[in-house]
Amino acid sequence: MLHTNLDINGAGHLTMAGRDTVELAGKYGTPLYLMDQARIRERCREYLCAMREHFGRNALPLYASKALCCKELYRIVAEEGLGCDVVSPGELYTAHAAGFPMEKAYFHGNNKTDADVRCAMDLGIGHFVADNREELYAISREATKRGKVQKVILRVTPGIDPHTHAAITTGKVDSKFGTAIETGQALDLTRQILTLPGVDLVGIHCHVGSLCFDSGPFEAAADIMIAFMAQVRKQTGHTLSVLNLGGGYGVRYIEGHPSIDIPDNIRKVAERVRARCAAHDFPLPQVLLEPGRSIVADAGLTLYTAGSVKTITGYKSYVSIDGGMPDNPRYALYQSDYTVLNASRASARPDLTATIAGRCCESGDLIQEDVRIARPERGDIIAVLVTGAYNYSMASNYNRIPRPPIVMIAPDGSDYVAVRRESYEDLLANDL
Amino acid sequence: MLHTNLDINGAGHLTMAGRDTVELAGKYGTPLYLMDQARIRERCREYLCAMREHFGRNALPLYASKALCCKELYRIVAEEGLGCDVVSPGELYTAHAAGFPMEKAYFHGNNKTDADVRCAMDLGIGHFVADNREELYAISREATKRGKVQKVILRVTPGIDPHTHAAITTGKVDSKFGTAIETGQALDLTRQILTLPGVDLVGIHCHVGSLCFDSGPFEAAADIMIAFMAQVRKQTGHTLSVLNLGGGYGVRYIEGHPSIDIPDNIRKVAERVRARCAAHDFPLPQVLLEPGRSIVADAGLTLYTAGSVKTITGYKSYVSIDGGMPDNPRYALYQSDYTVLNASRASARPDLTATIAGRCCESGDLIQEDVRIARPERGDIIAVLVTGAYNYSMASNYNRIPRPPIVMIAPDGSDYVAVRRESYEDLLANDL
Repeated sequence: MLHTNLDINGAGHLTMAGRDTVELAGKYGTPLYLMDQARIRERCREYLCAMREHFGRNALPLYASKALCCKELYRIVAEEGLGCDVVSPGELYTAHAAGFPMEKAYFHGNNKTDADVRCAMDLGIGHFVADNREELYAISREATKRGKVQKVILRVTPGIDPHTHAAITTGKVDSKFGTAIETGQALDLTRQILTLPGVDLVGIHCHVGSLCFDSGPFEAAADIMIAFMAQVRKQTGHTLSVLNLGGGYGVRYIEGHPSIDIPDNIRKVAERVRARCAAHDFPLPQVLLEPGRSIVADAGLTLYTAGSVKTITGYKSYVSIDGGMPDNPRYALYQSDYTVLNASRASARPDLTATIAGRCCESGDLIQEDVRIARPERGDIIAVLVTGAYNYSMASNYNRIPRPPIVMIAPDGSDYVAVRRESYEDLLANDL
Repeated sequence: MLHTNLDINGAGHLTMAGRDTVELAGKYGTPLYLMDQARIRERCREYLCAMREHFGRNALPLYASKALCCKELYRIVAEEGLGCDVVSPGELYTAHAAGFPMEKAYFHGNNKTDADVRCAMDLGIGHFVADNREELYAISREATKRGKVQKVILRVTPGIDPHTHAAITTGKVDSKFGTAIETGQALDLTRQILTLPGVDLVGIHCHVGSLCFDSGPFEAAADIMIAFMAQVRKQTGHTLSVLNLGGGYGVRYIEGHPSIDIPDNIRKVAERVRARCAAHDFPLPQVLLEPGRSIVADAGLTLYTAGSVKTITGYKSYVSIDGGMPDNPRYALYQSDYTVLNASRASARPDLTATIAGRCCESGDLIQEDVRIARPERGDIIAVLVTGAYNYSMASNYNRIPRPPIVMIAPDGSDYVAVRRESYEDLLANDL
């Protein structure tokens, strides 16, 4: 199977974490996001242990909440000792409501409003990752008003293109995020920050992009970031002590994708960081990484019920499911790869080539085109694998379709609801 | 200005329906969906009057709810005498909650579950627009169980490509929707339906696609559809009395788009329908159309507050706003055209070429690239025009950003909330 938490049982049904997915679909209804808590914890530990081993005891992975944000996720991540990266007051509010330690929360985003800055300080945010000049002035004004000094990390763009999809490539100079090192603007802004009252600039951040399958982009970023830290020290006398290299590791969505050895990647990046610090005679900084997708993606799958199976003579076949772009817009947005299985007939030979079509009144509402699948009958359970990241978090109510629940399988094998299914009443809650 | 309900007042602010958008942004906060009720009513009347005039008294426009679904819209549309097309139980539930007459509701969608069929019959749906064989059997079973006869329209694909974006082209033979006429499958299915108990097949439906700017695709569809109706009569002896030609008219998003004279387009399609019916000696059917976008799009705009204005030396400029792909995913999905204005400086010369970037932690979260705009300062109100359709209805909580409210300007110029702004508490409502 694609991942080690997936299998097929004696009934020929797909299992995750040892549980029969068809049985769980029957218990909770479809569409259903199903998640494997043990797998989330395993991924958290993989990052934490490897980072401590290779970067030192103060290294910290920050869970990138935008991949999947709900109270239960923050509880799990907090128990595992990770920090978190939040990108909006909504994520911050959720983390706070779940009891996440605010000093380990880092507030990201390319456009923090004055209200956002106030909200984050009210909740006791640990660090701001400041994107731009206007934001830094807003943070400075608010911190000064409160008589406090706010820790800030500056987001810069190292000018690296990891060659992934344009929409998820963020380390390039031409980006809505951060300030470019290459143009000299990052150094100018750093000088300005050092004159701002109420702001303690402790480090720099970059994010090279998404869906990276090796350490190359991170190593290249480390080169540029450490050279910049050395330059800042030389030009201003200020020594930055935090190096946040962002997130971006991919996951295996289909058989054709590689598996990533995260600890080995971290080891390589750490070697590079040590070497570059030595070359610049710069003290080893605290290193932060921001894994999101690689923490939760393969811990999740989505279960649907098949409706019609339609073969257009001389053209192709469509299998309709009871969800689609409202619960998973990634194919519509990025033409993302997914593995699709007939969970009810997981051991049957895939005998049909079909496009998996969502239920929305929109031609582009497809989950995957031309997949090989065991021919479904109306009522079969269809599984789309590796949907733990950027599915629930990106879900809409397009066509007024309620969002599915998230059901977790606990490490002891029991199942519980982490996020309730939306009701029709929920959809109307704000309609006057 | 792009549309007749837009103007600039003495303060140099953008107005809609005579109201100062900057003032309304101050009153309700941003992001804010602002809508012009009178314009919605005007568009409804345009369709209803032209259709009655040219197709006859029993012709009916059905408002395509998916463009914008909320209780207030159904109230307005019902008052104007239109029917509605719903594509999910959620839309149906909303229409019912708003008191929409259920006999004028048509239930669409390519994958109705057994539960959907029951729900629609429970609520007293007027017509099903049946997509496929499995659905028709489900409707037949449920109607038989209830001892009733359910009116059904069959969705067919006429095999027309209106040359619009692939994701919104739905009339082609290779489509997840309907059954193809060309392959003979539509006739076969029609024969089957005529043997099903509890089902009264009254007509056929097609939808040629979206963003059509003239009557060409509708006339081409009418040719094929009426020929098919004649064929069904000849082969089976059954005379279909309803011809539903779907929706698909575009709207003017930017200056470069044409304005569409809807009444004139309807006149042309009606001439063609009459001519083809005469040629086949077929009785003139009741004609239905399903306008969605063209009813609500230019009645809406979205107001944002500008955050940072960032110029990357040697590259380009970015204006960050406090919304983005969560409230308007259409640029991320389809690279849709939009007109963007600095509403606070609407009479100032556009002196900046900038990409309008949303606040999401995602590079693809842009609203429009390289637009000419009067250089904003932090706090200026930025307006994105023609967002009445497929914005609120497609909105997500990506990055846990609350969805904006819909504020209506009534025909008397007063403003009121139609849909409340989501609160952070709302976002957590289903988190356990």
